[in-house]
Amino acid sequence: MNFQSPLRVSFQGEPGAYSEAALVEYFGEQAVVPVPCETFELVFAAVTEGACQYGFIPIENSLAGSIHQNYDLLLRNNLWVAGEYYLRVKHCLIARQGARLSDIQKVISHPQALAQCDAYLRSHSGFKVEPAYDTAGSVKIVRDQGDGTTAAIASYRAAQIYGMQVLAEGIEDNPANFTRFLLISPQPIQPAATAKTSIVFSLKNQPGSLFRALSVFALRDIDLTKIESRPLVGKPWEYYFYVDFIGSSGDEVVGKALAHLAEYAPMLRNLGSYPCFKA
Amino acid sequence: MNFQSPLRVSFQGEPGAYSEAALVEYFGEQAVVPVPCETFELVFAAVTEGACQYGFIPIENSLAGSIHQNYDLLLRNNLWVAGEYYLRVKHCLIARQGARLSDIQKVISHPQALAQCDAYLRSHSGFKVEPAYDTAGSVKIVRDQGDGTTAAIASYRAAQIYGMQVLAEGIEDNPANFTRFLLISPQPIQPAATAKTSIVFSLKNQPGSLFRALSVFALRDIDLTKIESRPLVGKPWEYYFYVDFIGSSGDEVVGKALAHLAEYAPMLRNLGSYPCFKA
Repeated sequence: MNFQSPLRVSFQGEPGAYSEAALVEYFGEQAVVPVPCETFELVFAAVTEGACQYGFIPIENSLAGSIHQNYDLLLRNNLWVAGEYYLRVKHCLIARQGARLSDIQKVISHPQALAQCDAYLRSHSGFKVEPAYDTAGSVKIVRDQGDGTTAAIASYRAAQIYGMQVLAEGIEDNPANFTRFLLISPQPIQPAATAKTSIVFSLKNQPGSLFRALSVFALRDIDLTKIESRPLVGKPWEYYFYVDFIGSSGDEVVGKALAHLAEYAPMLRNLGSYPCFKA
Repeated sequence: MNFQSPLRVSFQGEPGAYSEAALVEYFGEQAVVPVPCETFELVFAAVTEGACQYGFIPIENSLAGSIHQNYDLLLRNNLWVAGEYYLRVKHCLIARQGARLSDIQKVISHPQALAQCDAYLRSHSGFKVEPAYDTAGSVKIVRDQGDGTTAAIASYRAAQIYGMQVLAEGIEDNPANFTRFLLISPQPIQPAATAKTSIVFSLKNQPGSLFRALSVFALRDIDLTKIESRPLVGKPWEYYFYVDFIGSSGDEVVGKALAHLAEYAPMLRNLGSYPCFKA
């Protein structure tokens, strides 16, 4: 892709957030200006209103699962998925310059990050652990209020941004900790390389309705890479399905499959086609 | 079901956690002794080792999505799903007895609960918001350290347990906030009423493999209620599917469908049949 540079790309969180680390890896440091937003709604709004060319949102974590709020925002906004990226989430223990590991008495971070580093934190019995709002935000707190005995858990990038020192890297219990991000764009793209397409559709709650829906892909040898159903609690007759498959909506066979699916699905929306992530 | 009473049932969190509120609604206050555990691993261990007859775990939240960690623990442990329950998550603002809403200057809770009450918190500009580890744990903090100007966000039950006062109820932004819980048991049960069954299986990454797998249900008019695929990052050829369907593994047609599925699935595990939740 030929991007106008530098691009403005919105993300949720403080500077140094994992979303920012992911989008910088995706575009390259020189090509992008990350724009922090307080909420996911504001990430979408920044793209819709033209303040940013793109947004970058987490959609699924290998440990914590799908982020339904962002699926909902994809449905509510008229934006397109234009890319995907998988970030390996590597937690660092971060303190002020000159601090030594043996000085640390207190560790702060988002409760999810603290939980993901539980074994490491327990192996240092001297650590008192305290929750904070945000991973990168906890590094800022240590910089502004820390006295050399407090450390934060956050990304390597957060340490760099706030001029802090990394005391330990890769302290998460489970290394299979990946987050999948989506690039969202005001315009659909036509990917040149191997493409993936994301769609969402509803089905009537009848036996076999999903089987019929998936037949439109199976009968055309289209490979599904993800499927998730979301029963709407309180509306037990209504289900949404999020499906990713290999292929571009520009492909003739995909166009036919989606036309076929529309025969069964009361609601069908193409969220976009984009290049498959390559590690 | 005819339970020996009172039952000991393990859950993750502090007394007053939403998991505890859910299991007490499920069994009835008099029939159960809730046993708090620090982690989900310990909830499973308590059942495996016989310290508790059952465990009660959240598996999916309508806003935050599936809790993959608990699916992993179902896979790793030799326990059975024996029931399901949907809890409407209703957040309360909780302070010491005698406190008035106009006294409150600081609100603490788990960041997810704070985020779910964002509109309410913003409408009270005087509130300073601070993260804590846990919803029920924040009520305990207010009781032990609060001075009448601090409030916590947690369940109504947490207020009762810690002898505190509810200043406001139902302060969440989105009322469609439900968590689905599973009852886990050392033994499978044979539900008498309309049953649901949970299974997990793997499939080879071939076009049409999911379609073939679902044909075993569709060809027998078995109704699926949930499907979720979990691609194992780093093993792009291996996928797990979690499927819930209406029917009991004691039904002849379900037995045939599962035998048919085993022809396609390198791994297939029946997690258990249990009575469908009725609101």
